[in-house]
Amino acid sequence: MYERGWALGTSGNFSVVVSRRPLRLAITASSVAKGALSAADILECDERGRVVGRRAGKPSAETLLHVEIARRRRAGAVLHTHSVWSTMLSGQAGQVAPAGQAGLVIEGYEMLKGLDGVTSHEHREFVPVLDNDQDMTRLARRVGETLEQHPDAHAFLLRRHGLYTWGATLADAERHIEILEFLFETIGRTQALVGAVAVPRG
Amino acid sequence: MYERGWALGTSGNFSVVVSRRPLRLAITASSVAKGALSAADILECDERGRVVGRRAGKPSAETLLHVEIARRRRAGAVLHTHSVWSTMLSGQAGQVAPAGQAGLVIEGYEMLKGLDGVTSHEHREFVPVLDNDQDMTRLARRVGETLEQHPDAHAFLLRRHGLYTWGATLADAERHIEILEFLFETIGRTQALVGAVAVPRG
Amino acid sequence: MYERGWALGTSGNFSVVVSRRPLRLAITASSVAKGALSAADILECDERGRVVGRRAGKPSAETLLHVEIARRRRAGAVLHTHSVWSTMLSGQAGQVAPAGQAGLVIEGYEMLKGLDGVTSHEHREFVPVLDNDQDMTRLARRVGETLEQHPDAHAFLLRRHGLYTWGATLADAERHIEILEFLFETIGRTQALVGAVAVPRG
Amino acid sequence: MYERGWALGTSGNFSVVVSRRPLRLAITASSVAKGALSAADILECDERGRVVGRRAGKPSAETLLHVEIARRRRAGAVLHTHSVWSTMLSGQAGQVAPAGQAGLVIEGYEMLKGLDGVTSHEHREFVPVLDNDQDMTRLARRVGETLEQHPDAHAFLLRRHGLYTWGATLADAERHIEILEFLFETIGRTQALVGAVAVPRG
Repeated sequence: MYERGWALGTSGNFSVVVSRRPLRLAITASSVAKGALSAADILECDERGRVVGRRAGKPSAETLLHVEIARRRRAGAVLHTHSVWSTMLSGQAGQVAPAGQAGLVIEGYEMLKGLDGVTSHEHREFVPVLDNDQDMTRLARRVGETLEQHPDAHAFLLRRHGLYTWGATLADAERHIEILEFLFETIGRTQALVGAVAVPRG
Repeated sequence: MYERGWALGTSGNFSVVVSRRPLRLAITASSVAKGALSAADILECDERGRVVGRRAGKPSAETLLHVEIARRRRAGAVLHTHSVWSTMLSGQAGQVAPAGQAGLVIEGYEMLKGLDGVTSHEHREFVPVLDNDQDMTRLARRVGETLEQHPDAHAFLLRRHGLYTWGATLADAERHIEILEFLFETIGRTQALVGAVAVPRG
Repeated sequence: MYERGWALGTSGNFSVVVSRRPLRLAITASSVAKGALSAADILECDERGRVVGRRAGKPSAETLLHVEIARRRRAGAVLHTHSVWSTMLSGQAGQVAPAGQAGLVIEGYEMLKGLDGVTSHEHREFVPVLDNDQDMTRLARRVGETLEQHPDAHAFLLRRHGLYTWGATLADAERHIEILEFLFETIGRTQALVGAVAVPRG
Repeated sequence: MYERGWALGTSGNFSVVVSRRPLRLAITASSVAKGALSAADILECDERGRVVGRRAGKPSAETLLHVEIARRRRAGAVLHTHSVWSTMLSGQAGQVAPAGQAGLVIEGYEMLKGLDGVTSHEHREFVPVLDNDQDMTRLARRVGETLEQHPDAHAFLLRRHGLYTWGATLADAERHIEILEFLFETIGRTQALVGAVAVPRG
């Protein structure tokens, strides 16, 4: 993901569920350059985002979002990338819908079939876009609400911040990242071609 | 192809003819992430797309398209990539021609000389675009018809799905992939520059 | 940086402070192809940009800029890349502000938090743009003035030439490069989408 | 060059002068996929483009262009790449100047200093654009005439075909490729931003 430019600098963070009861996540430490990530930069945290286990350190600032997703989706892995295209699409001005959830609608692409449970390109995927926030408790609560309101969503975007997706296994979550980043690039480039931006509402 | 972003997630599938009579293809298994492809993910199938040989498994959902191409073009290898540019070009709204086959016309590019039998940039290549379909029996039949109607075509596109091309050998098919993906990117970027889309009819 | 296309040909130059008193920099030699950089191409220079130490040679033509930054920012490393997007953004015609410093304003992006001391995406970063100049004594003086006038700036651009940034350590400076190049690409692509260029003044 | 997408398929060809009197070039064989290039694909040819030396084979179809450049510029290496951006820029419709040589003018970029003998970004580089032609004897003659008419040119473009540049050494020629491909990408992307194409005449 670093090589593709989806996790430059210290951006992006990644977790895997190592125990369900009690909930334990292996997660990347805070402020680690993803181009220099090593095993020592992976910490274990509990369901409140506190570090547990042998290794000390500060887990990713966004640990509470990972916990929220792991709990509500029973995900085995949660991945957050920070690509140019997801930053651009999530930041488009018109995307805040007054009466409802802002987001992207994606349909008609064969690539959608790589999302868990999707069997046809005629599938309509809604990717919620949440406003970015530095208050992680508040943002985690909004993430939780969004996941409940959109039970079929495979991912969400933080505005001008990037993509969160997940899967039953790490491989499933990786596949979702590749598929969604592909779709964002395709949609972004198509907008540049047609010179018109369609802004769907959830 | 994975590194170039032409086979992200589980997209793309690849086959080589290992026997002509009876027809036998070595083909990538269904739902394999192309970034993690290993020898164990290559299955052998017969002319009806059924797995034969030592290794069990489910061959690519699009196996019948590979069989159709291998038979009608006497190809030694069939490759399907799923790039951003082929997805975009195949999906342009105006491309359904009422009286005939939708498609792209490509001419005037030196790169065309990399296609089998082409000796000048003045060559006019027609790349048919077929509507995407999850019914593989029906889609294979339409692929067969299209190949017969356009005997000079080196490739076709599935709408918002990607590229199919082939060659006498795997190396020939790989060269066709690189050349066509180059041309799609060039045509797509040129459209963005000139702000106008020419929609040829077959 | 070479692989990402940020230091093609002989473009780009890089230094690390190896001694503070007296000031000594390890810096890339002049006219070295960055794709073929080896340890022998790193020279040691003093605070006037003259080569000192064991290895003879000609240090980067822009050594005085590195010295100026190392002194005024107390930086441990200074990195200069030369990407397509920084060349484009720095060269936009309208960017010379008659009454003040030309530059780019970047705000609202989560990625800004990778800059030293920045804790929120609501941060407003001003990246000064200086006219390019082959007179390095004069340009170093203007760089020094600009650094004094914009004490919060993490970087500056030379017009149609590229990016200078720095950090307390080499890793910090590398992170700044990745973050700023990401932001330049994002802003450049966004301009292409919206078809409008906002030209902020310092 | 293959990895950067500048020599996909069988496109591109490369030579080095191994003897000046008589003139002998080591040159890539015809129709070799550049992603699979090996030492056995390098042939030796004379000043008429005929294979000489131990290894038999067919040298690049464009061998006569290499010979012409090696002779008239006394180049030690000649490189031809075939990138998306050089294909696009060389193909812009308005570029045929009725009274003179078609071409691109590039000036104001620091990157120009990587061209042999150029010492300032204020340098004005003219890159002639020649119509593509499959008649290599005729095209070689026109290349020779163009080199004489533009003695300061470091390169030329074949329309919708790609870039030729050269240098005293292979390293010099490689640097020229990287610098010119960078400039073509920068100019092409800038056109997409400003939505206007300036068409200079030689």
